[in-house]
Formats: sequence, structure tokens, C-alpha cells
Amino acid sequence: MSGVALVTGGAGFLGSHVAERLVREGRRVIVLDDLSGGYRRNLPSNCEFVRGSVADRVLIERVFAENRIAHVYHLAAYAAEGLSHFVRRFNYENNLLASINLINAAVNHGVKCFVFTSSAAVYGSGADGAASPTPTPVDPYGVAKLAVEQDLRAAEEMFGLRHVVFRPHNVYGERQNLSDPFRNVIGIFLKQTLLGEPCTIFGDGKQTRNFTHVDDVAPAIARCVEAPEAWGKAFDIGSDQATSLNEIAEMVQNAVGCRVGVTRLPERREAAHVKTNHEEARRVFALGPGVELAEGLRRVAAWAADLELGPPRLDLTIEIERELPPSWRNALTKRAPHDS
Amino acid sequence: MSGVALVTGGAGFLGSHVAERLVREGRRVIVLDDLSGGYRRNLPSNCEFVRGSVADRVLIERVFAENRIAHVYHLAAYAAEGLSHFVRRFNYENNLLASINLINAAVNHGVKCFVFTSSAAVYGSGADGAASPTPTPVDPYGVAKLAVEQDLRAAEEMFGLRHVVFRPHNVYGERQNLSDPFRNVIGIFLKQTLLGEPCTIFGDGKQTRNFTHVDDVAPAIARCVEAPEAWGKAFDIGSDQATSLNEIAEMVQNAVGCRVGVTRLPERREAAHVKTNHEEARRVFALGPGVELAEGLRRVAAWAADLELGPPRLDLTIEIERELPPSWRNALTKRAPHDS
Repeated sequence: MSGVALVTGGAGFLGSHVAERLVREGRRVIVLDDLSGGYRRNLPSNCEFVRGSVADRVLIERVFAENRIAHVYHLAAYAAEGLSHFVRRFNYENNLLASINLINAAVNHGVKCFVFTSSAAVYGSGADGAASPTPTPVDPYGVAKLAVEQDLRAAEEMFGLRHVVFRPHNVYGERQNLSDPFRNVIGIFLKQTLLGEPCTIFGDGKQTRNFTHVDDVAPAIARCVEAPEAWGKAFDIGSDQATSLNEIAEMVQNAVGCRVGVTRLPERREAAHVKTNHEEARRVFALGPGVELAEGLRRVAAWAADLELGPPRLDLTIEIERELPPSWRNALTKRAPHDS
Repeated sequence: MSGVALVTGGAGFLGSHVAERLVREGRRVIVLDDLSGGYRRNLPSNCEFVRGSVADRVLIERVFAENRIAHVYHLAAYAAEGLSHFVRRFNYENNLLASINLINAAVNHGVKCFVFTSSAAVYGSGADGAASPTPTPVDPYGVAKLAVEQDLRAAEEMFGLRHVVFRPHNVYGERQNLSDPFRNVIGIFLKQTLLGEPCTIFGDGKQTRNFTHVDDVAPAIARCVEAPEAWGKAFDIGSDQATSLNEIAEMVQNAVGCRVGVTRLPERREAAHVKTNHEEARRVFALGPGVELAEGLRRVAAWAADLELGPPRLDLTIEIERELPPSWRNALTKRAPHDS
């Protein structure tokens, strides 16, 4: 496997795991990351690092002009699904328009394969375990992810841009962002538990998610460019095990070894259950049974134990204040100035 | 019906017809239009005119802050479906992000109803006359329109923003833009015939469209804010009659009274047939049989006879040159400086 791999968001959580695997396979890897959600410490050694945003069209053009990019792994995103209602414009600029810069460059520079991490959020509440449910996103984050999927399909039909889409299901694991109070419930509960604060649950906590360890997702993403059976397809990927928020709060506290209890907040509009079908991904990528949840939580808790947990680090302007949960408003007023 | 109506794109084709109807009903109407595709001559008398773009977030905020907007009719768009492959970023900035500015403002300022003109392009080739086909857009224009529809649904669920979506089917009629060589095949053929040039057909000309006169669409759009049965719904609206491009080229030339023949160009990727179902729109808005195609063409030809037909007036930068039909590249090099 030759040619340069560009990994956007490669200083972030999932991106750094993918970049690390590519480096290990001997690939030349360029990581593009603006460090808005990622960290230098996450970068694999032996990668080249360009600090900047995918939304910066001029930068993207320069990176492609100066390097012969064979494969794009586009993992940069602002992945705060619930918050996206309140930062609509920010969401579409970062998750859709930025992706379009990359798609334009990929077509113009003859990229061999474009790998995109979408999200189970494209399904809204519409996934019930069937093999190919119809995407019906219910928040701007899911809308943006689905639009990029569709744009990639159009680009493949029109320009022959080969692509693979992954829709990972609630990925957690070492290096996940614990600073952003809006991303990933396991990260939120983990930080709260480590700080001795109760875990905040919206509603009755019976909503379920299929929590998936990053080691069960990153290898397939890294490998797909050399798996012809994967090309042109979209893969739901993740655990088959549905776990309620009540259960996961309990399990996170067990993993840390500290009881902090839970605080119940009024329910907010979100999908109650998202049940995607992972058979196709399992078959094409020969995936095993996956990391057991309690074990995965032990690993991420061990990793997080040594982290310095600061205040939220966010560059966000709320665009709509109405219906914003008060706890989120508080989190936004407590945030720290941005650093890297 | 009280309160101010904001009509974006109200100096454009469909927008000016909607604005005219609202003015006639005694509504206070503000037209927002950047005149990139519209003309001052299209503005109804007795409307207020703000020249500017929906993409200008600061302007949008000012218009909503200074006026108590009750109803938004969002008709501004860059409606060149086939070209959208080559101007992806431009397409999403103008058709998606700009719409998001309006949705944010509508939520923040308590708009009563948000009317959005989407497009049959959301269906790609996926519409076969069934009542509710699944949208599967095949070009960036359709992707952007569908994303706005989905964002509006999310905004209604989260914030109670009432909305109505229309997906008009190949609308033609008086005041349509004849200057843009990428919009609307009847407009293109009409201009070519008036200039004595042959009509350009991509492929065998057997692809069909359901051409719909503007008078069969504008009244329902204007009226929907007072039709509770329409709220929250998306309406396919247009003619049931499929007409091939070969036939329409013939009919346009008959309407003008001038034989120019056709030039055949290599086929390009586009939907062969788009058959949408208009029963629901017909029922809810009590629509009649509609303007007969030959009669509608006579009207638009009579209107166009007095127009000064200049070179294309376009502010476009092609983002992807690959696969761009040579005739389109020529059209882009012949364009005139922008004026209003």
C-alpha cells in the first residue's frame, strides 16, 4: 500500500487511532487537525502534522498540491449531536462545508479512496436492527453527516471518486475528549466521576446506546482502502449490545472505583434507542466479538486517571438559546480559554 | 392574515410571483434578494425591497430585528441542478448555509410559519409516481435541498417552528431567468430559439420532465400559511404530464414561431425521468387541472419576445473542471460582467 494518507482530525480520538495504525503499517501519514478538539499528545510518532482546519479551503488546496495524497481519511468533525440544534450554522460549516473542501480537492487531485466517518446519527430514531434502514436524521449533526454521504455518492457517480463510509456507534476509549461537556456520554460520565461529581442523566436514563470500543472500529477504517468489497458502501459498525444510560453510569463508576451517584435532569429530545445492524461490517472486515464493555471501561478509566481535567475547552457561540438545557448553558459559561 | 411576509428571492422567478400574490392580498411584503439571478423589474409594486444575500448573516439578523416577520417564504436559491456537481461549495453555501441563517433567525424571532421551496431534485431518479418515495438525491443541489427539509423538521420538533415544504416540478413561466445558461431547460431552449440558435440537447432527448406553469404553483405557496392541513408537510407539486426534451424543444420553437432545430451533445449524468405524485397538493390546495403546456409556452414566449437577451450574467467560479460539458465551459467564458 503506497501513497500518502491524509488523516483529518488525526489528533482527535478516533482519528489518532486510525493514524497510528496507518503509521504502524509503514504508511506516510499527514495529520491535519486544528486542535479544537484534539491534542498534540494524541499524534502518533512518525506522522507529519499540519495544524489547521478542513474548513480552510486555501490550506486544503495547498496540502493537496504539495503532497501526492492517495487516501483521505476524513475524521475531523464537531461531534456534539445534541448540541447541534443550538449551533446549527457552526455544525454545517464544520461538518458539511469543510467536508466539501476535501471532496473538491480529492476529485481535483485524483485521490484513490475517500474514507468518511459518518455517524449512526443519520438514522435518528429510525434504526431498528434491519439491514438497511432509511436514514431519517433528527438533528443538524445527523443531517450534515447524511448530506456528506450523499455528496460522496454523487461524486463517485460523476467523477469516479471511490469512497467508503463508516457509521460508528457511540465509540469510546483511550484518548477520547473529556474536556468537551457535549461529546459522548461515557466521556462525560467519566470526567464527572473522576471529579467526584454525580453523573448527569437527562430523563429516566432508560434510553440505550450501543457503546463500542475504539479498537473495534479503527482497524476496519484503516484497512478499508485495500478491501475492494468495501468500496462504495456505507457500514454501520459497532457493538450489538444495547446499554441504558442508567447502566453505563453505574459501570463507569465501577470502572473508576468511585461512587458519585447520578443527577436526573429533565429529559431532552433525543433518540430513545438506535439499533443498527453490523453484520455486513463484520463480514467484510472479519471482525471478532469485540472488546467487552466492562473491560473497555476499565481501560479508558485507567488511561483517564492520569489526565489533568480542566474546564471545558470550547470555541462555540450559541446561535439559538431557546430550549438549551440549563446545565449546558452553565457548562458554556464555565469554559476555559482555548489552548493547545 | 396579518404580520409581515419576508420573501427571499422575491426578485426572482417563482419568488416574484409569490410576492405579487401576497401584495395583492394586502400583506406587507419585504423582498430580500441579491439580484444575482433576479431583476428589479420583477418586483411587485408596493413591496419593500432589501438588496442583499440570505448568506449574509448580519443582514438577516438586522431584517428580523427591525421587522416583525410573521411568515418567511424562502425561495432564494441557486437553482442549477446539473451544474451543482462542479460548484459544490458554492451550492452548499447558497442553498444550505444561507437557509440555516434564516432558520436560526426564524426560531429566535418567533416566526409563525416558514415556507421553503425545495425541489423534485431531492428524489434523484428515485421517484416513480408512488405517494411517498424515499428521497435519494444524486447531485449536490438535491442534497442541499433535502438537508434543509430535514433541518426544518428538526427545528419544528425541537423549537416548534411551523413549516411547509414545496417540491415544485420544473416550473417555467413569465419572468423566468433567461440569462443563466444552466437553469431550466425551457428557459435555455427559449433563449436559443429567440437568438436563432439550435436547442442543445444532451443525449437522445428521451429524458422526460413534468413542466409546470408558475401559475399552478405560486398560489399554493402563498396560501399555505393559512392552511393548517399543510403545516409540517412536504408537497410534491406540478404537472402530471411527462414531456420529453425532444418534444419540449419542438414545442418551444412552435411557441416562438421559429424553427432552429436541435444540436445533440453527449449525454450527461442526470435523472432520466422524475415522476412525482401531486395528489396530496391537489387535495389540500384544491388545485385545478393547471395551465396546458402549449398555452403556457405561448405565454412565456410572448413575454420573452420583448426581452433584451444579453450574455450570461453569472458570478460563478468552477470548482471542479473534470467532466464539465464543453458547452458549459464555453458558456462560462462568454459571460458578461454582473449588473443589476
